[in-house]
Amino acid sequence: MRIAEMTFVEYEARLRETDPVVVIPAGALEQHGPHLPLATDAIIPTRLAEMAAPRINGLIAPAFTYGVRSQPKSGGGEHFCGTTSLWGSTYALMLSDVVQAFGRHGVKKLVILDGHSENQHFLVEGIERALIELRRDGITDMRVIRLGYWTTISQSVQDVLFPTGPVNWDLEHAAVMETSVMMHLEPGLVRLDKIPDEPMAVFPPYETFPLDPRPIPSCGALSSARAATAEKGRVVVDSLLDDFATIIPSAFA
Amino acid sequence: MRIAEMTFVEYEARLRETDPVVVIPAGALEQHGPHLPLATDAIIPTRLAEMAAPRINGLIAPAFTYGVRSQPKSGGGEHFCGTTSLWGSTYALMLSDVVQAFGRHGVKKLVILDGHSENQHFLVEGIERALIELRRDGITDMRVIRLGYWTTISQSVQDVLFPTGPVNWDLEHAAVMETSVMMHLEPGLVRLDKIPDEPMAVFPPYETFPLDPRPIPSCGALSSARAATAEKGRVVVDSLLDDFATIIPSAFA
Amino acid sequence: MRIAEMTFVEYEARLRETDPVVVIPAGALEQHGPHLPLATDAIIPTRLAEMAAPRINGLIAPAFTYGVRSQPKSGGGEHFCGTTSLWGSTYALMLSDVVQAFGRHGVKKLVILDGHSENQHFLVEGIERALIELRRDGITDMRVIRLGYWTTISQSVQDVLFPTGPVNWDLEHAAVMETSVMMHLEPGLVRLDKIPDEPMAVFPPYETFPLDPRPIPSCGALSSARAATAEKGRVVVDSLLDDFATIIPSAFA
Amino acid sequence: MRIAEMTFVEYEARLRETDPVVVIPAGALEQHGPHLPLATDAIIPTRLAEMAAPRINGLIAPAFTYGVRSQPKSGGGEHFCGTTSLWGSTYALMLSDVVQAFGRHGVKKLVILDGHSENQHFLVEGIERALIELRRDGITDMRVIRLGYWTTISQSVQDVLFPTGPVNWDLEHAAVMETSVMMHLEPGLVRLDKIPDEPMAVFPPYETFPLDPRPIPSCGALSSARAATAEKGRVVVDSLLDDFATIIPSAFA
Amino acid sequence: MRIAEMTFVEYEARLRETDPVVVIPAGALEQHGPHLPLATDAIIPTRLAEMAAPRINGLIAPAFTYGVRSQPKSGGGEHFCGTTSLWGSTYALMLSDVVQAFGRHGVKKLVILDGHSENQHFLVEGIERALIELRRDGITDMRVIRLGYWTTISQSVQDVLFPTGPVNWDLEHAAVMETSVMMHLEPGLVRLDKIPDEPMAVFPPYETFPLDPRPIPSCGALSSARAATAEKGRVVVDSLLDDFATIIPSAFA
Amino acid sequence: MRIAEMTFVEYEARLRETDPVVVIPAGALEQHGPHLPLATDAIIPTRLAEMAAPRINGLIAPAFTYGVRSQPKSGGGEHFCGTTSLWGSTYALMLSDVVQAFGRHGVKKLVILDGHSENQHFLVEGIERALIELRRDGITDMRVIRLGYWTTISQSVQDVLFPTGPVNWDLEHAAVMETSVMMHLEPGLVRLDKIPDEPMAVFPPYETFPLDPRPIPSCGALSSARAATAEKGRVVVDSLLDDFATIIPSAFA
Repeated sequence: MRIAEMTFVEYEARLRETDPVVVIPAGALEQHGPHLPLATDAIIPTRLAEMAAPRINGLIAPAFTYGVRSQPKSGGGEHFCGTTSLWGSTYALMLSDVVQAFGRHGVKKLVILDGHSENQHFLVEGIERALIELRRDGITDMRVIRLGYWTTISQSVQDVLFPTGPVNWDLEHAAVMETSVMMHLEPGLVRLDKIPDEPMAVFPPYETFPLDPRPIPSCGALSSARAATAEKGRVVVDSLLDDFATIIPSAFA
Repeated sequence: MRIAEMTFVEYEARLRETDPVVVIPAGALEQHGPHLPLATDAIIPTRLAEMAAPRINGLIAPAFTYGVRSQPKSGGGEHFCGTTSLWGSTYALMLSDVVQAFGRHGVKKLVILDGHSENQHFLVEGIERALIELRRDGITDMRVIRLGYWTTISQSVQDVLFPTGPVNWDLEHAAVMETSVMMHLEPGLVRLDKIPDEPMAVFPPYETFPLDPRPIPSCGALSSARAATAEKGRVVVDSLLDDFATIIPSAFA
Repeated sequence: MRIAEMTFVEYEARLRETDPVVVIPAGALEQHGPHLPLATDAIIPTRLAEMAAPRINGLIAPAFTYGVRSQPKSGGGEHFCGTTSLWGSTYALMLSDVVQAFGRHGVKKLVILDGHSENQHFLVEGIERALIELRRDGITDMRVIRLGYWTTISQSVQDVLFPTGPVNWDLEHAAVMETSVMMHLEPGLVRLDKIPDEPMAVFPPYETFPLDPRPIPSCGALSSARAATAEKGRVVVDSLLDDFATIIPSAFA
Repeated sequence: MRIAEMTFVEYEARLRETDPVVVIPAGALEQHGPHLPLATDAIIPTRLAEMAAPRINGLIAPAFTYGVRSQPKSGGGEHFCGTTSLWGSTYALMLSDVVQAFGRHGVKKLVILDGHSENQHFLVEGIERALIELRRDGITDMRVIRLGYWTTISQSVQDVLFPTGPVNWDLEHAAVMETSVMMHLEPGLVRLDKIPDEPMAVFPPYETFPLDPRPIPSCGALSSARAATAEKGRVVVDSLLDDFATIIPSAFA
Repeated sequence: MRIAEMTFVEYEARLRETDPVVVIPAGALEQHGPHLPLATDAIIPTRLAEMAAPRINGLIAPAFTYGVRSQPKSGGGEHFCGTTSLWGSTYALMLSDVVQAFGRHGVKKLVILDGHSENQHFLVEGIERALIELRRDGITDMRVIRLGYWTTISQSVQDVLFPTGPVNWDLEHAAVMETSVMMHLEPGLVRLDKIPDEPMAVFPPYETFPLDPRPIPSCGALSSARAATAEKGRVVVDSLLDDFATIIPSAFA
Repeated sequence: MRIAEMTFVEYEARLRETDPVVVIPAGALEQHGPHLPLATDAIIPTRLAEMAAPRINGLIAPAFTYGVRSQPKSGGGEHFCGTTSLWGSTYALMLSDVVQAFGRHGVKKLVILDGHSENQHFLVEGIERALIELRRDGITDMRVIRLGYWTTISQSVQDVLFPTGPVNWDLEHAAVMETSVMMHLEPGLVRLDKIPDEPMAVFPPYETFPLDPRPIPSCGALSSARAATAEKGRVVVDSLLDDFATIIPSAFA
């Protein structure tokens, strides 16, 4: 189900015979606190895509492992050593080229499964540009959806994740949700002894340029990850897989 | 206080003598339902900036009247006749050129007062690029803040606006908040007899490309605007002006 | 007649029912001497467009308020504090996006009414690129004209403006014509006590880079504005409005 | 004196020892009527540069032989078969790369000798961008001038060229001046039996897009070339060479 | 040693303490015959980098998994279903952003280990642009090397690989070398029963556009892969690892 | 046969009547040792094209006289004074504009005759982009070939050129082949007393950035040119002309 590992003959046959859903995980190489690996935003959607694949007739394309520039309020910002990003304009071009290529192969169902919120608007720009190009070459039957994997987490799962009440999703960077999911999916990559417990970052309602590092926790996590557990991660993942099994086919119906 | 109406001699003197805050309203030309004008997203931040100017030693630059491409979930999308947008990559270039020019004038305090949520990430890209350029020319003392005007609306004001409970801000397009504010600021531009009352739009958690028009209310408003009143608008505006008078100077302290 | 103030419903109806001429004023934020406002190049074509609108079935789009980089021989150059410009390449992209949007709305008659000579060639590049894009999407029935508002000033009006003989239009920056027109259209924005009376700038036949400030009058006006009068402005404006009422419909016949 | 024909060792020695003026002829491949070759706009400034070289300590760089897109009012437009042009944005990038390279060599005096009016504003954009780049690399001692070769033609020479009175320079495309100069410089390339004698083109004060071919003479010349003579060409060339010998050194003094 | 799996704290410490060599594998998603996976060009340099890492104090960055457009003579061309590429200009931008990010982290030794020959010239363009940007921000101590992994295969190893004589490296696409290496490194990903044995492709000395499919074997391999063996792959890999252990440190000495 | 010297009327007639092959020589302005002129890479393909023209019904377009940035291993690198290059991305845009223009004229057979190896991949990018644009405008009958002139030199001619055995073509910069050809074609431009005889450059298998000047001979030639003779040049040229007379027509058959 990994396109990377298929031969072109197998891929082409699969495409022609079963009209699969191609999923591109869109990640980042971005600091995720002292306890999570830099590629967390790529690992989670990649693993989710692979697990979801059998239920959605999915093929998994190679992930975008470098993401759009990190912002202080959602990822801590570009000044963290290790955060390795693309300008949004570069990212949109890259995405557009790749979407066009899949369209020319004959892919009709394409999911961009986003794991890094800063990618979102540049993914949209890239997809829109790609579809204009494809349409001019007579390819009008590809549908693309962009899905931030965390956006489908249901209220009941949120109640499990955050029993003390609603959460600010933007500040869930390297915090309970991501940590729990990684503890479940990739326990070997989580430094349990480094899980940070600093208070939630408090930002002004505006953004400051040049970046003002003062409101950004030096540990990199924007909220405490202390309450993370592998079990919470399992609940999230199971629930997401169920959601994807419903949502994705319906998006292409 | 409008830079457009000042001579360059007056502007330069003001800059050298009082170190003012320059505010650029960042709007859009985008459908805002059958009752609000296409330039709503430009009019509101422009008027707010003008009203706030005396309290923040502000100078108002000409607004960006064309914004980034409208998205279905926040503005209805590009298929509405009248929505007239720029690609995000164009927008970031435009913004970068203008920010650089103000930096070269000697402006040290620049506020981008955003009225159109789709602008946000491309504003950031443009500002970041501009500051890199300026830094290379030895200009390092300009600070820029980006502020979505609605992001400072306090909880108590939200309670007035939405007495029945919390609201989905993304779907507040052409709805109670914008309509109320326009009824207060520009009553002559609101078609009271056309205020829409369709139920709140319901979108899937993903975006679909090409755009799927089905979940988008044909009236263009993403929530009902029926509960809008000029008095609510007055409360919002008065509160925002108080907020700006505190927040903006502190951002440059 | 201002698109900014129309609802999308009104705009669409007007478009479908009367096939109007949409006019985009293309201005600048550029020094105009010690007596004229920075937005002079935007104000004049905007006001002319608004006054002409009833006679040409015109709708006025929001002006481009930032223009292409000022050149010494036509606008004094970029080193004046207050001049706030775009690179030509940015400008052409911006224009192309906007022209395409109007084309997709169904506008068939589009006028770019230019008030800043440095815009000219980048307007052309942007329009040509937009029409290529539109043509590829099957939109072939929009005609665009670019008109520098001052280019239609007749010889008899020039005789009124410049009774002592022909003038070098390039050096008419912030001089008799613009000052007269602003005195007529926006008397409150003209600093009558600051009208400059320096001799006409004398430039070599070449341009020098980096800019050589020596031939550029420090007052910013490239010729004396002393002979400006509101009455001359009235004559120019009345004549231009008559011209537009003839020229513009004929351009779309 | 042709850089193309020098070895790098000779070029470098010349640069270090005599601080020469490097001249880049900026031409076009554009229809020039039934009687003049397509490269007229490149040939004239190249030949002028070569003839002027001894008097200005000049070195001649390879000409830009493809120019910016032809406009109807100055070159007839892009629809003529044979006109082979670059987009302005491409041209500015090309120019910027080349100007930077000469700056890095250590050239301190660079002349862009323009033979195609449509190049002008994109030359300026390219030069300005190049100087920003060079300045950031510590190269601040190169001065560049842009000179349209025809702009220095004196009134007395114009009286010889156009004895019947002043001429519209924009419409002098493939007309008396260019034809005369080519008859003098490159008589073998002028088809004397094809010299056109159509009346001067009459254009409206605006430009129309898509291009309206009706006002454009199908012969390609925008004015009659009948009055051209080799002797007139000699007068122009001799005068220009004298002018260049004065103007160019003074521009770098 | 995989940066993707390190926390930013670990990465930063490693960088500051041991001055490691960062290796970015540059691959492609490109048809590699009926027997090799589409990601062959990414898998080989990634695996080589991981195996080499302990001997060169290496850290492995996430691979570029999408490469520059495939050319008929070196990869079969873009018309194969499954080949999924970027335009070279996109690729250079992407590379430049990433190289700059590593430079800002403080990486001083960066290797681009290339597995896809079409990447080469755009890698160079991206690296050169990145170093200009970094230099302007005062970062001058990063050295970057670009190394096509196959270019270090020694003559003695070539004798093992190709006992019947010298080979045309360009046509070694999906042929003996790549197949042998994959049989050694990733035996589970090689379809042994599909190894193609078509004669070597014969191309004219030029390239044809639009692409002429006739000289391109429909199996996708440009030479026969029949002589591939895992043992040959082992010889190549062992030799390359020895080479890298010598070459890479010496490149940064 | 030089398009530059034809009128548009002659060119158009020729195009319509004889369906000629248009050849664009793609050169460079790049150091070629102490003995060859900077434009060697432009001069050779231009002269070859002109000599080949009668046998292939050829028309010669103006050469691209500035090429893609010189690389140490094939041209010595950008640090040589006199080498004057374009970024690859600029070059691809320039090429694309020109190819499109010829396509719109109705040219059906276009040869890019390349004399500078660094141009190659950017020529390909430019041609591919141009054909996409043309196809969208309904022009599908132009075929373009890219031909490095030296790539057709036969083995028997190589035996004459290099009697002591095979040569590394990359290092043949300003060496025996180019020097011999120039001695035959342009004897006046070869400094016979400066022919360098340094040993062949030895490069590591990787490229280093910033450029490492140590392996690059300071004379600029990458191999000895001592064995060059005009007679060898004649053999090469005669052979190439024969080759072109066969290859080029067959490419368009």
